[in-house]
Amino acid sequence: MVDSDVAEKDLPASRRGAGRRTAICQATCELLAKVGYDRMTMDAIANQAKASKATIYRLWADKPQLVAEAVKCQFGDTTDVPNTGSLRGDLMALMSAACEAATSEVGEIIVGLMTAAKHDQRLAAMLSQTMFADKARLHTELVRRAAERGELHPDTDPALVHEVMHSLISGRMTWNLGPLDEEYARHAVDDILIPVMMYRKP
Amino acid sequence: MVDSDVAEKDLPASRRGAGRRTAICQATCELLAKVGYDRMTMDAIANQAKASKATIYRLWADKPQLVAEAVKCQFGDTTDVPNTGSLRGDLMALMSAACEAATSEVGEIIVGLMTAAKHDQRLAAMLSQTMFADKARLHTELVRRAAERGELHPDTDPALVHEVMHSLISGRMTWNLGPLDEEYARHAVDDILIPVMMYRKP
Repeated sequence: MVDSDVAEKDLPASRRGAGRRTAICQATCELLAKVGYDRMTMDAIANQAKASKATIYRLWADKPQLVAEAVKCQFGDTTDVPNTGSLRGDLMALMSAACEAATSEVGEIIVGLMTAAKHDQRLAAMLSQTMFADKARLHTELVRRAAERGELHPDTDPALVHEVMHSLISGRMTWNLGPLDEEYARHAVDDILIPVMMYRKP
Repeated sequence: MVDSDVAEKDLPASRRGAGRRTAICQATCELLAKVGYDRMTMDAIANQAKASKATIYRLWADKPQLVAEAVKCQFGDTTDVPNTGSLRGDLMALMSAACEAATSEVGEIIVGLMTAAKHDQRLAAMLSQTMFADKARLHTELVRRAAERGELHPDTDPALVHEVMHSLISGRMTWNLGPLDEEYARHAVDDILIPVMMYRKP
């Protein structure tokens, strides 16, 4: 196995590095879907990505770190904050995107990883960071805009909508309560998220 | 191994049956805590409960059915609906009890079963029925009383508080968001459950 890439050999070194990094992340996700976290070896990743193990260990300290980046890179780290001009529109866009992601092939990979994380605390911490904490900026931005438009009280806590949105999706999957479809997104937004954000004590 | 119980031999047959049933459920929970669902055999249960396999199979069709009853019998099927005289009091009592149950030894058994249920649809259906659907009556009763006291609008949907309460606990456990303690119960009740139930569109 050689640590080079013919298609990228004329690119500057930094671009080559980025391309290889992406290819290894891609290979990792393919293997996660095929064999799952526990049975996935660094050798198999090197093989699938046509990279050397030395390269992989130069870029990542261990399997949980590599998996964290691979998941981040595939699972909407680049999600734009929806800007539809209304709180309800933004919430529907964010909730629909989250439902779609959770039911996609990558969503299945995440469910598998969450299971593996039950006996791997470092993997659990990485997943919690990547799949939960890193999404906080989306909710902060959504609440900031709605407060600017005068739709929400300026002291509305973005952490609240973040916590409830993620919990609703986990709960629906955990308890097999039904599909994560558009109708469900509407229910979550109108019956739960908007009430939680707009309620003021009488 | 004999299918009799010296201590119970003078009881009427129906009482003997109930005692044996409870003992087998108890033994099942002990084994679930020790070895987990996948590695637990009917032989081991028979051994632990000092009962014959014939008795076990006369009472339950298979392992998922036995486990469902064992879990139900240990995990607060007999929970009383708290009646504190106020909506907030009832919600706090119910939420605190749910948090306590989720973090108990039985809670750990449930988490293990949920993991096993990822590749066992019948077990998943049993768990969803026992741990979720069967709790609906608690929320129905809580909402009915609050509506009678005039604290809630009569058309408040009990399914909503049921869905959100269960989801919050699952989400907090799934994403390692912190302990399921009294402070968290207060947050869930005051910042999420009461707003969801009391909110009226402006």
